[in-house]
Amino acid sequence: MDYFTESLKLHKKHAWKLETAVKMELNTKDDLSLAYSPWVAQPCLEIEKDPLKAYDYTLKANTVAVISDGSAVLGLWNIWGLAGLPVMEWKCALLKEFWGVNAFPIILDTQDTEEIISTIKNIAPTFGGINLEDFSAPRCFEIEERLKAELDIPVFHDDQHGTAIVTLAGLINGMKITGKKKEDIKVVVNGVWAAWVAITKLLLKYGIKDIIMVDSRGTIHKGRDGLNPTKEMLTNITNTACVLDPKSKECIIWGLAEAVAWRDVFVWVSVAGALTIEMVKNMNRDPMIFAMANPTPEIMPDVAKAAGAQIIATGRSDFPNQLNNVLVFPGLFKGALENRVSQITEDMKINAAVALADYVKNPTVDEIIPSPLDKNVANVIASVIK
Amino acid sequence: MDYFTESLKLHKKHAWKLETAVKMELNTKDDLSLAYSPWVAQPCLEIEKDPLKAYDYTLKANTVAVISDGSAVLGLWNIWGLAGLPVMEWKCALLKEFWGVNAFPIILDTQDTEEIISTIKNIAPTFGGINLEDFSAPRCFEIEERLKAELDIPVFHDDQHGTAIVTLAGLINGMKITGKKKEDIKVVVNGVWAAWVAITKLLLKYGIKDIIMVDSRGTIHKGRDGLNPTKEMLTNITNTACVLDPKSKECIIWGLAEAVAWRDVFVWVSVAGALTIEMVKNMNRDPMIFAMANPTPEIMPDVAKAAGAQIIATGRSDFPNQLNNVLVFPGLFKGALENRVSQITEDMKINAAVALADYVKNPTVDEIIPSPLDKNVANVIASVIK
Repeated sequence: MDYFTESLKLHKKHAWKLETAVKMELNTKDDLSLAYSPWVAQPCLEIEKDPLKAYDYTLKANTVAVISDGSAVLGLWNIWGLAGLPVMEWKCALLKEFWGVNAFPIILDTQDTEEIISTIKNIAPTFGGINLEDFSAPRCFEIEERLKAELDIPVFHDDQHGTAIVTLAGLINGMKITGKKKEDIKVVVNGVWAAWVAITKLLLKYGIKDIIMVDSRGTIHKGRDGLNPTKEMLTNITNTACVLDPKSKECIIWGLAEAVAWRDVFVWVSVAGALTIEMVKNMNRDPMIFAMANPTPEIMPDVAKAAGAQIIATGRSDFPNQLNNVLVFPGLFKGALENRVSQITEDMKINAAVALADYVKNPTVDEIIPSPLDKNVANVIASVIK
Repeated sequence: MDYFTESLKLHKKHAWKLETAVKMELNTKDDLSLAYSPWVAQPCLEIEKDPLKAYDYTLKANTVAVISDGSAVLGLWNIWGLAGLPVMEWKCALLKEFWGVNAFPIILDTQDTEEIISTIKNIAPTFGGINLEDFSAPRCFEIEERLKAELDIPVFHDDQHGTAIVTLAGLINGMKITGKKKEDIKVVVNGVWAAWVAITKLLLKYGIKDIIMVDSRGTIHKGRDGLNPTKEMLTNITNTACVLDPKSKECIIWGLAEAVAWRDVFVWVSVAGALTIEMVKNMNRDPMIFAMANPTPEIMPDVAKAAGAQIIATGRSDFPNQLNNVLVFPGLFKGALENRVSQITEDMKINAAVALADYVKNPTVDEIIPSPLDKNVANVIASVIK
């Protein structure tokens, strides 16, 4: 199949994938008079008295906004909001199709952090939850934190936390298969994406002790020059036993090759390239590789396998072990809306990852994670979001 | 029927009236891979190259935002955005149910003019058109004008122009029935709403020559003290032949009673009350009264009729001659989206009113306007929005 052409054809055929639909029939003048003018005034007055009544009388009860400024779309990076609309629209379509959550895309025409925050706050009343999508780091951290603090509905940056949850779920099953333990496992996380930090934090929260983070300059550790505040913070929780230079007694900056050697798990959320056969060969026994760039993974599954990888997972639906956020965000919002949760906590994220992993009854090297087409997964996740 | 109770019951039963729906089926991994990850990147790249391609590949082609800050909802006035959500949600439901236009409500958590303008500009890329709803005057004038100037999609403040179009349509048929001519007819427009100004302007544009406007202090005319800029502007186009005080040679301020006397048409967009039987009796032969307050009209139809009104129209669906904006905005947006119109011009508004009037083949005193339940009306209006 010529995916390029077929994709354009499909998207053009269904120019709008997402429609609105009306739940009740309007046939008589009485229907119209009760539902709209003039008697719609009644629910308005009820909500004016008690804003929480909006959950009884409006779509706020079951509607999520999927909001993006298009600054970090897939592997396409900064294409601005409008060009990212097909992604957001599809995300909304998936939320509905798979899990009955109503979601609507909102594309922003600004990439200014303050304007983004005030715009989202200004349109928040309509929605029961906000899914931030494809905002670039480090702006995404501030945008999410500020909105979480200032809004009374759940705000979730899927690129960070959805990716982190699905990665942890895959890793939990990977450990089951390879017989490795979270206390002993050595992990290297390479990347520049928003997910890079969220994955590391969630793995640590889960109980993994030994994580090295690598950016384009090499390993991140205390004392390295020119770290931004986020990376500075990371030196307190990762790579704490860095290799010291015998003379200066300071940490040595390793490149990717040295960082990967003797590690059990390699998580790469970045762009295609650079993970070589040699590097995989130098990893610990039964290496697990999570190569999550889209549309082209950092290493192709057959190459990784040939080099000795026990488990290789990607973001791609045409390979096994697709670590797709679609496994997480629908159930997460379903649960949050059903249980009227106002914040997604760290504990909820861990519980979601464990539930997702446990849902695979007999994990194998080609099935560490459920299929994104399994419509029951959302219920499994929704049940722990409370 | 106990409308109060029934309305709340109905709105609670259909807590969300409006849902999203997905136009294509997703069954296989190939479906998912083409539609979403990774091949959704193709339409994104096309739109990045040419933003107009968003109309080919996304819901922008057929989706309108219905945006409100809740500052002037129905007869409820300033109940803020969230409490106005039932109205906006229903408006969207009607757009879909009756005319297949996808519309989504956006409730604003600010009533600051500048913040409103920047918020709407920031979320505009998603939409093919913007329907402003229930913004109070005079802020609504600036908000609409600025957005019209700065956005490349149609922006339409329904409370102003929808009301004006439907009023003109009713008046056109009223003139047919009573045999009065637009060149001769004397109109008085009483109100404080946003629609008050828009109706006057549209009637003048249509060719009506003699209009007197009345606010809470009395008639508006040149030289009256303390007029705001909007009213000052109105003195140039209305009540130009004001009654002069014989001594001071200045215009006399009339009250409502004097302003109504010997007029043919009384348009009242305000709140219930104050139009007395005496006043109707003092109007010209075959008076036409448009009493548009919701939920309670300024004068009840039976009272107006008893006082001699030839034609009485209200905003209510339980009386004849319902001048409901629902007759206008769906067709207007349908036409604007179908014909890719970037501005709703004055000529389009006149054409819409004429088309709406002409759609009633044999107008009678009880049928000057089509039924809001007639689903063909939108096509009639859409056909002239080009």
